[in-house]
Amino acid sequence: MRVHIQNPSADDLFAFTDGQWAEAAARAGDIGAGHHVSIGETAAEFSGAMTEAEALISDVDTIRRLPPRGAARLKLVFVTSAGLDTLAPYDWLPSGAVLLNNRGAHAAKAGEFAIMAVLMLASGMPAMMTAQRAGRWRKRWGHALAGQRVTIVGLGTLGGAAAMQAARFGMHVTGVRAAAGGAHPHCERVIATADLDTILPATDCLLLACPLTDATRGLIDRRRLALLPRGAGLVNIGRGGLLDQDALCDLLDAGHLSGAVLDVFTPEPVPPGHRLWTTPNLVMSPHTSADDPATYNPLSLDIFFDNLRALQDGRTLPNLFDPARGY
Amino acid sequence: MRVHIQNPSADDLFAFTDGQWAEAAARAGDIGAGHHVSIGETAAEFSGAMTEAEALISDVDTIRRLPPRGAARLKLVFVTSAGLDTLAPYDWLPSGAVLLNNRGAHAAKAGEFAIMAVLMLASGMPAMMTAQRAGRWRKRWGHALAGQRVTIVGLGTLGGAAAMQAARFGMHVTGVRAAAGGAHPHCERVIATADLDTILPATDCLLLACPLTDATRGLIDRRRLALLPRGAGLVNIGRGGLLDQDALCDLLDAGHLSGAVLDVFTPEPVPPGHRLWTTPNLVMSPHTSADDPATYNPLSLDIFFDNLRALQDGRTLPNLFDPARGY
Repeated sequence: MRVHIQNPSADDLFAFTDGQWAEAAARAGDIGAGHHVSIGETAAEFSGAMTEAEALISDVDTIRRLPPRGAARLKLVFVTSAGLDTLAPYDWLPSGAVLLNNRGAHAAKAGEFAIMAVLMLASGMPAMMTAQRAGRWRKRWGHALAGQRVTIVGLGTLGGAAAMQAARFGMHVTGVRAAAGGAHPHCERVIATADLDTILPATDCLLLACPLTDATRGLIDRRRLALLPRGAGLVNIGRGGLLDQDALCDLLDAGHLSGAVLDVFTPEPVPPGHRLWTTPNLVMSPHTSADDPATYNPLSLDIFFDNLRALQDGRTLPNLFDPARGY
Repeated sequence: MRVHIQNPSADDLFAFTDGQWAEAAARAGDIGAGHHVSIGETAAEFSGAMTEAEALISDVDTIRRLPPRGAARLKLVFVTSAGLDTLAPYDWLPSGAVLLNNRGAHAAKAGEFAIMAVLMLASGMPAMMTAQRAGRWRKRWGHALAGQRVTIVGLGTLGGAAAMQAARFGMHVTGVRAAAGGAHPHCERVIATADLDTILPATDCLLLACPLTDATRGLIDRRRLALLPRGAGLVNIGRGGLLDQDALCDLLDAGHLSGAVLDVFTPEPVPPGHRLWTTPNLVMSPHTSADDPATYNPLSLDIFFDNLRALQDGRTLPNLFDPARGY
């Protein structure tokens, strides 16, 4: 297969290298052999490659900048992100091509970030950081996780990894899925999004880990945030648009919620002077929760080859992205 | 046995109640029965009880304020802390009494705080918080824990719990003990404090969890901190005096160390305007890492009854504190 990798410009950290391709191809065995691969960074390299390429591997920002419209031979567009909401509408996708995301690549790092955030909330770290910022020594006690109740919205790669960690620490884990039914190995119970209101009053920590779709945009609005009990905490590793940020800030200001750890925002980057920067008991990380540069490209390429194997075997591609569903 | 519990004055959160005693006594079975217990809060209640009491249960601060000198019938002084360094010298201890600490009560919470801190360092959270304080969006990538190298100084309750958590996340765990020899179930290897210099250059995260004694005061001095590789992080849940705080701040200022999470300091409380409050990439919690008010008193009383049983059976008291050794 003729594969083109288009790297982000001026990004040493996440740029694919010939060596990473060769190592991943070797790990993949027979399915890794016999490909013609090119790696580009400039717009000229991109358009030169698109006349012949059958597969394109690239990141969300690069594809937004250089959508492969009219690349007649493209069969696979593999995007090295899990959430592709910023690529909608998907009318740039050539008619002969399918879209793949890299879901699965984020499990280890995202699960660790999630349990770190849950531990920070249980320990009262967001309030401690607010006190530190003010130069004030103020004792504040926390809780161990065992017996605490976490509700995880979304049970994909991120939510599933978070559930595994939370269960390991003895938490009561409730998972929330788009549709009713089904169990999850790390959840005590799984409910449908439609039943979300019933669990919020019995939630110590609400963790958002679902994709942003028409169905989830604004899901955690002011009314639902207020259903959380006094002292509850919130983690968002999904997308900023899942949440009414302003309502969250109000509830933190009022002390109804004890803390929040946010990795995703609307908009990103958060502009200077935005209220989020100074809201008390709010900890921000700059949309980096799920990515470990040391393993990101190797994991992504392994996923790419998994999909090539499925294609060869005539199976459904495991990372097929459904533009209608949005994930 | 005639037991007196002296509560801290004006502390609702950690004050023992009759109900907590009754529940712990019931859990203890036969060894919990037949005691005469009094609970006091004032100095008058204390001195009134000390003429008859055979066991005293109290906290470090209260004993500093009201040392039971001359309490002729005292056999056991059970202090509801693990580190009793602030009670030295121990000349206030009646000659007929032994001193017990509550080591063991802190395992769950301290282990969770420790792994939270290690995860925060691996994720770059201290630097993110410094950027947040400045209102700056600055991408910074972190690492998953698997394969990272943590060195844990002290393998008691705190260090042992930290080692268990770190091993569970796939870290390479080196434990450091006062004396050479011996293994630990959650460490790949255990070295003696005398060999500490050999491991520091191969440490991604240095975690201090040992008691403060004449042998450990100032153990992590400027020279040893500089032996850590560039980008390493530091956690201190032991005692502030283990560490040259000023050297730590210098190395954080210089960017040699990537971050630190400190729960303990010299002095405590950290005074207003102290350099610690504003040193970059330094996260502070106000000496609350190991305590969960929901479980602290019940766990402490369970430990007290364990020691009563050992006393009855003629065994060495498991929580015997050795004033000469300092732990």
